[in-house]
Amino acid sequence: MTDTAPAPSRRRENTRTRLMDAAAQMFAEEGIDASSVEAICERAGFTRGAFYSNFASKEELFLALCGRSADTTLTAVRERVASLEVTELDADTEVRKIVQEVLEVAGHDRLDVLLGAEIRVQALRNGDFAEAYLALDRGLSENVAHLVRDVAQARGLSLRLPLDEATDLLLSTWIAASEHALITRRDPNRARRDLAERLAHLVALILE
Amino acid sequence: MTDTAPAPSRRRENTRTRLMDAAAQMFAEEGIDASSVEAICERAGFTRGAFYSNFASKEELFLALCGRSADTTLTAVRERVASLEVTELDADTEVRKIVQEVLEVAGHDRLDVLLGAEIRVQALRNGDFAEAYLALDRGLSENVAHLVRDVAQARGLSLRLPLDEATDLLLSTWIAASEHALITRRDPNRARRDLAERLAHLVALILE
Repeated sequence: MTDTAPAPSRRRENTRTRLMDAAAQMFAEEGIDASSVEAICERAGFTRGAFYSNFASKEELFLALCGRSADTTLTAVRERVASLEVTELDADTEVRKIVQEVLEVAGHDRLDVLLGAEIRVQALRNGDFAEAYLALDRGLSENVAHLVRDVAQARGLSLRLPLDEATDLLLSTWIAASEHALITRRDPNRARRDLAERLAHLVALILE
Repeated sequence: MTDTAPAPSRRRENTRTRLMDAAAQMFAEEGIDASSVEAICERAGFTRGAFYSNFASKEELFLALCGRSADTTLTAVRERVASLEVTELDADTEVRKIVQEVLEVAGHDRLDVLLGAEIRVQALRNGDFAEAYLALDRGLSENVAHLVRDVAQARGLSLRLPLDEATDLLLSTWIAASEHALITRRDPNRARRDLAERLAHLVALILE
């Protein structure tokens, strides 16, 4: 593929990445139970040997995938939020703007929504997955909580609910609406606009 | 098992019920993909012949199960809500009472929570399941919407959100909190009290 062969550690990293990409698609489309190591290897174009020199099991790969998906989303949200400037807009308009900015970088990707649902159902059944899910969930919650608190403080507004309940409300609305849009096969752009509208309503309800 | 053999239609109904009960446990614990027809038959104590004279496939049984689970929950919620009398309590106390009454008959059963999560993840992947899920979801939404509207009207309160958004908020909070309680393996009674508290906060926030 390239003129010079990549160094071993780089090549190893490439192999891991390609196996994870192939597995992410399979897990999202068919679920972890129905995705065999053989099928993941075939899709990624690697042997079983390559798989097992990178991951002890399908489950270990799935957990690595959860971590990667959470990191990517959190980093994107954090950067986007950090780049926001305090505006001279009225509170309602500003809230809408923040919600739209965050939704541009997170939560509307089909594969992410499917993977999230798969992680949750596995977490319900399996203690190891439960831990991985809870770590991911805590990371997301902390970021959203920071965001809600910062917006409230910058505006001199107070919360009409405890911060953790407000955060859970926003996250569960976000997840439920993203899943519903996929299940009803709605146009993704239209679905994202509706979600932005709902989240803006909700933030306005929570802040006073 | 009984002194007199049941009539054929009754016996057939018993077979269906026992197959569905066995399948509900397997689907909830291991997921539909990992549950074979053989394993369901073994757990229910029937042959494959008995299975296929009642259901064309594992998927058909799963959809029948979704319908039964939704019917049971909806009937229980509807009856409980119909039995509620308008009280002389203040609005806040009354809302707490209603939420507690509803939670006593729905939403805290481990198997129901697991099955609900499994239905949703299958609906994300499969058009047939999507239709079944959406029918179930509409039934629940309509009932909760009626309840919210009736409580508001009886009290002369108005909603601070559109009715459909208020309903979705209550349902997604309910589902997310029930799943979270299972994933963190919290004491079910404690989890139910916390959920009642959260839902009461939310209803108070939505009504003004």
